[in-house]
Amino acid sequence: MTLTLPELALSADAQDLLFREARTANTFTDEPVTADEIRAVYDLVKYGPTAMNSQPLRVTLVASDEARQRLLPHMSEGNRAKTGTAPLVAILAADVDFHETLPEVFPHVPGMRDAFAGDVDSRASMATLSAGLQIGYFIVGVRAAGLFAGPMTGFDAAGIDKEFFDGTALKTLVVVNIGHPAPDAYRDRLPRLDGARVVTVV
Amino acid sequence: MTLTLPELALSADAQDLLFREARTANTFTDEPVTADEIRAVYDLVKYGPTAMNSQPLRVTLVASDEARQRLLPHMSEGNRAKTGTAPLVAILAADVDFHETLPEVFPHVPGMRDAFAGDVDSRASMATLSAGLQIGYFIVGVRAAGLFAGPMTGFDAAGIDKEFFDGTALKTLVVVNIGHPAPDAYRDRLPRLDGARVVTVV
Repeated sequence: MTLTLPELALSADAQDLLFREARTANTFTDEPVTADEIRAVYDLVKYGPTAMNSQPLRVTLVASDEARQRLLPHMSEGNRAKTGTAPLVAILAADVDFHETLPEVFPHVPGMRDAFAGDVDSRASMATLSAGLQIGYFIVGVRAAGLFAGPMTGFDAAGIDKEFFDGTALKTLVVVNIGHPAPDAYRDRLPRLDGARVVTVV
Repeated sequence: MTLTLPELALSADAQDLLFREARTANTFTDEPVTADEIRAVYDLVKYGPTAMNSQPLRVTLVASDEARQRLLPHMSEGNRAKTGTAPLVAILAADVDFHETLPEVFPHVPGMRDAFAGDVDSRASMATLSAGLQIGYFIVGVRAAGLFAGPMTGFDAAGIDKEFFDGTALKTLVVVNIGHPAPDAYRDRLPRLDGARVVTVV
């Protein structure tokens, strides 16, 4: 079915940069990616909405060789080589203790920190969902910076948590390789379900 | 701390539209929002990456008065009035039976449908995370269309699932009001954690 689609407010070039031409990269050039670039990405996407403004996402940049060697054994075999050679690797985790920050980020409703203090299951579920949204924003932000992302979920999350976040409430959700794509960075794009199929009207 | 931030590839206007000037709207003008507009949003953001290209997000547009009346009792009291008056309401749900679509969307690795068929817990967790990313993309896409989103998690998810998705594996994650903002659509922006605080380097 061919639809005449409404014009979007976002320019076609920006649509291409963020979605249509953007691709998940598996190999990268040697050009480095700095922590300042990723902080700039975060400082753009931090405005994306989260439940109760909770902002549970925490970004850990694996920049040193020593940290990289600690990460690799926890990646699944198919993700190990690309994670070993990407210019920069980010561990994206949800902070299940986000309630400690609510007095600062949700100040107009006092008492929320205490209300959530005893309910770790609710916090884990809320943190996962809102951090998931923030990972979506983050991937868009990496592309907004002109960089390419290679997000992965194939790893031993408990192993990464123990190696990097022991004694905290951070739970790893996604690991992302970040850089500039090599010539062979990606295969043909896999099929997408389109709006005519995913969107139902009741 | 003032950092001199690297330039992003995305234009400043687009950064403003999607993140810096974008706001969560609580009230809307009467201007309608059509299903075609939301399909166009989806057809842009469908390219965002998901685990195994699984694309578990399903969008149900509550467009009829009858469907709206079925939704409202399941919204929490503080969300009921705005959900009752928004031009369009979208229920964003994860399809825990996404594995049925893997032969189509992940065709180069045969057998994945069967591998996941018996493991509903893994599927539920994977569907929630990838649909969470897709909800992030969707909110960015609503803004790309020049529309404003009012995403909410305050509702009885089991009630909505029973009312709208009985007999399916769809699990409601977020409900979003969509429209053009009224003059009083939002308060001052709540504080954000910045990149210097959220991003750690190891």
